[in-house]
Amino acid sequence: MFIASVIVVTQREPKENMTLEKLRKEETLAMREKLIGQSCRLFYSDDPVKIVKARGQYLFDENGKRFLDCISNVHHVGHCHPSITKAAAAQMDLLNTNARFLHDNIVMYAERLAATLPEKLCVFYFVNSGSEANDLALRLAQQYTQHEDVIVLDHAYHGHLMSLIDISPYKFRKLAGQKEWVHVAPLPDTYRGIYREDHPNPGEAYADTVKDLIEEVHRKGRKISAFFAESLPSVGGQIILPQGYSTNVAEYVRSAGGVFVADEVQTGFGRVGSHFWAFQLQGEGFCPDIVTMGKPMGNGHPLACVATTVEIAGAFTANRVEYFNTFGGNPVSCAIGLAVLDVIEKEDLRGNATRVGAHLKDLLSQLQTRHQIIGDVRGVGLFVGLELVTDREQKTPATEAAALVVKRLKEDDNICVSTDGPWENVVKFKPPMCFTMEDAELAVKSIDRILIDMEASDI
Amino acid sequence: MFIASVIVVTQREPKENMTLEKLRKEETLAMREKLIGQSCRLFYSDDPVKIVKARGQYLFDENGKRFLDCISNVHHVGHCHPSITKAAAAQMDLLNTNARFLHDNIVMYAERLAATLPEKLCVFYFVNSGSEANDLALRLAQQYTQHEDVIVLDHAYHGHLMSLIDISPYKFRKLAGQKEWVHVAPLPDTYRGIYREDHPNPGEAYADTVKDLIEEVHRKGRKISAFFAESLPSVGGQIILPQGYSTNVAEYVRSAGGVFVADEVQTGFGRVGSHFWAFQLQGEGFCPDIVTMGKPMGNGHPLACVATTVEIAGAFTANRVEYFNTFGGNPVSCAIGLAVLDVIEKEDLRGNATRVGAHLKDLLSQLQTRHQIIGDVRGVGLFVGLELVTDREQKTPATEAAALVVKRLKEDDNICVSTDGPWENVVKFKPPMCFTMEDAELAVKSIDRILIDMEASDI
Repeated sequence: MFIASVIVVTQREPKENMTLEKLRKEETLAMREKLIGQSCRLFYSDDPVKIVKARGQYLFDENGKRFLDCISNVHHVGHCHPSITKAAAAQMDLLNTNARFLHDNIVMYAERLAATLPEKLCVFYFVNSGSEANDLALRLAQQYTQHEDVIVLDHAYHGHLMSLIDISPYKFRKLAGQKEWVHVAPLPDTYRGIYREDHPNPGEAYADTVKDLIEEVHRKGRKISAFFAESLPSVGGQIILPQGYSTNVAEYVRSAGGVFVADEVQTGFGRVGSHFWAFQLQGEGFCPDIVTMGKPMGNGHPLACVATTVEIAGAFTANRVEYFNTFGGNPVSCAIGLAVLDVIEKEDLRGNATRVGAHLKDLLSQLQTRHQIIGDVRGVGLFVGLELVTDREQKTPATEAAALVVKRLKEDDNICVSTDGPWENVVKFKPPMCFTMEDAELAVKSIDRILIDMEASDI
Repeated sequence: MFIASVIVVTQREPKENMTLEKLRKEETLAMREKLIGQSCRLFYSDDPVKIVKARGQYLFDENGKRFLDCISNVHHVGHCHPSITKAAAAQMDLLNTNARFLHDNIVMYAERLAATLPEKLCVFYFVNSGSEANDLALRLAQQYTQHEDVIVLDHAYHGHLMSLIDISPYKFRKLAGQKEWVHVAPLPDTYRGIYREDHPNPGEAYADTVKDLIEEVHRKGRKISAFFAESLPSVGGQIILPQGYSTNVAEYVRSAGGVFVADEVQTGFGRVGSHFWAFQLQGEGFCPDIVTMGKPMGNGHPLACVATTVEIAGAFTANRVEYFNTFGGNPVSCAIGLAVLDVIEKEDLRGNATRVGAHLKDLLSQLQTRHQIIGDVRGVGLFVGLELVTDREQKTPATEAAALVVKRLKEDDNICVSTDGPWENVVKFKPPMCFTMEDAELAVKSIDRILIDMEASDI
């Protein structure tokens, strides 16, 4: 009996693993190092994680260990949501041709997206990634304005394509450097930027830096095509733009003949809870000229989009050159996009983001009263940042401590978070939108314990 | 009984349509015109087709009318192949996270692709579209060589991104014009180019034009990063490169410190039948430094890739900047990629491409003996072009006649083809690889009848 039971167990385990894991982890890692460009980095590079399964806000490794996922903003409605898989499979079985043929999905999807946006953003271009969307946005802006220059925010990242590295200080500073047509405005960071919480009107003051920059550009005899910014700068450190900033910037940029591009690739689709788009946090009076969207749009499926006005789209058409994107707007991508919108609504994920995000921020703010290392807690909905500093006066970034928190959250408690910001000292939360109150409590409790430990050992 | 039967039919039809068509065609069209950027053009723009279903090499419109699809090279193993849908759905249900976690699919897929390529092309980067692949290839080439300039073929098209419009004469001539770092070599077209079939060695002669161009570039004090070309120029007019061309060009480009990029986005994955990659038609002695792939790779799913050498990948890693592509190489994309490779092998689609392609070319060559308008028939495997000319001596492009053939094939016989080439006078065949002998016969018979009609009415 004893022997038989052992046999049963040994038989069962490899069999279960067989379906989910085809190679041993060390083999996967060795093949990865050999076959995949090393510029494609792994999380936890010292001890990478192999994930074989996921559901909702949970990831499972090859041994069945469960991780709480606080960072997969792409898997917006939850990993492997059955409604999305069902919609994708049904459409894949029926038709997946290109957008040169008429199809209902693309127009129905565009109509649904239009309903989430201000009325003037009513023309859509479907593409495969946030990077493709931002590249097209740049083309649209330059074609419409017939100007070349672009203003971006410091530390911004807009994608991996050549054109986007050019407008991403986060990348171009490490690579080819700043092009003469790109101009960098200060990041409107009211925690550690040039104007802070104590300023009477930081939104206006930061907008004035853009106004000054435009004047500088004009003095050089150059002209602005676009102000290009994430509605909530992410890589920049989970920054919340101060009120009034975008409205004022839009006014200055439009006066200069340029357009306002809101990059919503990371922030759209209800992540901020109170609104469907993060730019809407700037008030009803503000409307961008171009909005780009991506990551959460297809819940992992490569799907992205540019929305713009009739005038800008018209200028793009006027050059009489076709824009053809092979996979963009195909029936399967659009079926998935529609299913994602349905789930956001049916499961009230915006409401959940509002409630759970507020709770998470509250709990983190409570931690801040007990841990000197927590310099700032900021966020809206399920877009939350916890900025660590070695001293609150100087706001010296606690980069190493942040890395240690990330590492220990994973090792001690199977919780995945990561860092952002120019000094990688902002612990970020951008979980799937089904993240619960209990998940928030668990994560904060773990951080508390880790910070107590770190304080005790004086790290 | 008669009345009842009528009722049954009327009830049945809308019901069937209901599942496949959610809007009436005119409504779809009206919404499309309003909501989708008009730069995204429709096939048959005067009378667009609404497709609601597809299978194998067939498309079905909203009334159940079946079209023979001779152009969907993206749907490589056949529209809606059940093996692909099954693999996609199974993986979507299990996991679809990003490539920062270890996963078996990406490494197993890279290994399978490596097996199709020369040994030195052994490092892979997964992306979402041929355009993303070509943009990355350009970055890799420039980073590795530390040179900037690129040589491309006349009339080439490499994608819709800003960086690729710059290296696509087909696009930049209509848009911003030629950049100082881009140089255009003559298209090695032995039918109507500067060296033709009667030349003793057109491959060498065309390669010499690249050699001359490199010398010209050097005289300007500039340096070559890459020669960038499709292995079979597609938009250029379904061109077959003459033997010896690529080997010689690679030698000249490498002597200048540059690399050879083979754009296999349209031509890879066995379309040419005899080989897995079209560049292999140039002989075993030839190996590019970078290969880009896309369209057929995911049978419609947004999936693309760059393959390169250890040295080039190493130079890219050496800049210490991460390359992160949100959706690139995710488990679902790789599961689909693996399933496509399986079907190509299991169904011997390369063998089919060889046999059916040869038959198609034979039949078209027979037509050529009867129709003066057919100037040239060329192709390999299921990559075939039929070039129409108003007279065989001058080779004047028969652009209008080609458009009429496309229109009548659709209207009379429900056959979808389209045109390519600088004068849009090359009728192209790039069907799903399950295209049959009978399909080829049907298409050629229809073309024969249409040409007879056109000759009779002297169009």
